[in-house]
Amino acid sequence: MTLPTKFDWKKLEKFCFDVFVKAGVSQESAKIVADSLIQADLRGVESHGVVRTSIYLERIEKNMIDSKSDIKVESESDATALVNGNNNFGSVVGSFALDVAIQKAKEKGAGIVGVKESNHFGTGAFYALKAIQQDMILLVMSNASQTMPPTGGIRPFIGTNPLAVGVPAGEELPFILDMATSVVARGKIIVAAQKDNPIPEGWAMDKNGNPTTNAHEALEGSVLPIGGPKGYAISMFIDILSGVLTGAGFGKYVNNMYENWDETQNVGHFFLAIDINRFMPIDMFKKRMDLYIKEIKAEPKGEGVNEIFIPGEIEFRRVEEQKETGIELPFKVVKELHQIGKRYQLELMDAAIHENNNVKETIL
Amino acid sequence: MTLPTKFDWKKLEKFCFDVFVKAGVSQESAKIVADSLIQADLRGVESHGVVRTSIYLERIEKNMIDSKSDIKVESESDATALVNGNNNFGSVVGSFALDVAIQKAKEKGAGIVGVKESNHFGTGAFYALKAIQQDMILLVMSNASQTMPPTGGIRPFIGTNPLAVGVPAGEELPFILDMATSVVARGKIIVAAQKDNPIPEGWAMDKNGNPTTNAHEALEGSVLPIGGPKGYAISMFIDILSGVLTGAGFGKYVNNMYENWDETQNVGHFFLAIDINRFMPIDMFKKRMDLYIKEIKAEPKGEGVNEIFIPGEIEFRRVEEQKETGIELPFKVVKELHQIGKRYQLELMDAAIHENNNVKETIL
Repeated sequence: MTLPTKFDWKKLEKFCFDVFVKAGVSQESAKIVADSLIQADLRGVESHGVVRTSIYLERIEKNMIDSKSDIKVESESDATALVNGNNNFGSVVGSFALDVAIQKAKEKGAGIVGVKESNHFGTGAFYALKAIQQDMILLVMSNASQTMPPTGGIRPFIGTNPLAVGVPAGEELPFILDMATSVVARGKIIVAAQKDNPIPEGWAMDKNGNPTTNAHEALEGSVLPIGGPKGYAISMFIDILSGVLTGAGFGKYVNNMYENWDETQNVGHFFLAIDINRFMPIDMFKKRMDLYIKEIKAEPKGEGVNEIFIPGEIEFRRVEEQKETGIELPFKVVKELHQIGKRYQLELMDAAIHENNNVKETIL
Repeated sequence: MTLPTKFDWKKLEKFCFDVFVKAGVSQESAKIVADSLIQADLRGVESHGVVRTSIYLERIEKNMIDSKSDIKVESESDATALVNGNNNFGSVVGSFALDVAIQKAKEKGAGIVGVKESNHFGTGAFYALKAIQQDMILLVMSNASQTMPPTGGIRPFIGTNPLAVGVPAGEELPFILDMATSVVARGKIIVAAQKDNPIPEGWAMDKNGNPTTNAHEALEGSVLPIGGPKGYAISMFIDILSGVLTGAGFGKYVNNMYENWDETQNVGHFFLAIDINRFMPIDMFKKRMDLYIKEIKAEPKGEGVNEIFIPGEIEFRRVEEQKETGIELPFKVVKELHQIGKRYQLELMDAAIHENNNVKETIL
């Protein structure tokens, strides 16, 4: 039997949606989760894409995610709200919280929403893009389970807690910053280890806290924060706003999705939506953004540099390209999704783009 | 004649206060500016300390700072305000904006204040500490004149735009993050150049956009952002919130305090104050912060590491120490302040701590 590895994004999204619905998730929630996964793949952030389908399913099955729980505003004041995710899907909880933040921003100029009892919520860009469509500036953060040491420490204590910011522009593409606070994604070290390749200095330390260029040693140790103490401090403040302030887990109290099967994750998030119109008319703001972006892109370039990109621009192009030509998935992920499909009488192959050059042989 | 280089912090603050008052600044404003400078020195951030007295005076004298202007709330809504600094002192404008942000947070749960037409506002920690005293979480940013290239660029376009965050704790010290978005302060490169020392790779590029370890070449080129594209994106989002959104300058429209004597700086700032009580009782929050900090500090340490510090802890100790033993100033700064004192019939030496070991010979 052969398996193609390139997929039509809409059909792949439908496949994921169907999988989650068969697994007992409501249509409304399944739509959000599938949308979040496919958007990540389209943007080239494979680590947050459909590769997560299997772990999400496993956590539902083992009652580690409750897709039927009520997500609630537990308390609120004019410009703030505290959302209890009640252990629902992270992206469903996050989307709920985003709506509350945007509503508050429309009413009061700004909305701050803290979230507790949530799960891994996908990419921050997913929410930033939704806010931009409503002419809002969004700042969103989440904590995560332990992967980075504090400066001076030797073992993971804080997560690679991500920070995302979305800002609309006019004619130009919107500004989308979406970053982990680590120098590099752990996934890149896993890939290096699989190939027995060394990793650059500064990416990681071994389990004794020594710098290492050995990928295997790095995986037993810790990922390092960007800019040393600066990244440590940024990651910590994200943990404080997302976790300490909201009543969610923080530090070691944020549980690992892959390793802890006794406790829910209790991830915390933090959303800040700002209504631009309270500062200047939106059209004027967009003209200023366009000018800013045009001026940056017109800067003289270094040797071998073809273009200066604004944050998010490369990902936007990736989306356009992959919507056209299809999403290429690693063979391992294709096999996994295929097995999941079989379990639920769903045919992954209906989502495939059949080309000779991306079909790999396998026996399933 | 001899000049001591160690000063009593209170007397030195009084000296600076007197200087600004003699230069025509109101007592209220002079108090804020002097306080801001001394606090920076006490925290060990000499670049933002009394070394700035002479440039501030020069900008007043040349009508580049208007210390008598009215700082105004230009527009406001429930949770937001836009402050026009009318080209007053940055630290005076910043203190005004902070008060508005905290007032809004007390009333509505959160306060977002954008500021335009301001000047260099000193350290972000200055505001974070004031917010902490009122049990508020503060996030404060400012843009700055051009020093860093965008990723792929070769000349300065964005500033080393600083970000500061303050969070109160209970028994433990508060969390204070206060960082520039560059790998290293430009001042460190100036020091290396003065000594003809090389600088580490990754700090800067030369004027052609090539990496350099030559401090002289670096000074003609650009400082580099932390984490490459990540630092570029963070600096840009600070510029967007502080400058594009507020009507202040951004990118090349933020003027250089030392080089541009035709135009005001038009620096922009962004303040976000959060009332912790809207999320959980302040006492519970402080207990959670204490637990978090205690757990981080108890982590196993790397070889040669005596202690794991939380952000701001080293600076707090520095303050305690220097309040006790005095502030040591570079001889160049002492001479400068001495000259300024003579101009206004103020005796800098009254603020000195007279010890044999810190008196340097000079002819003035």
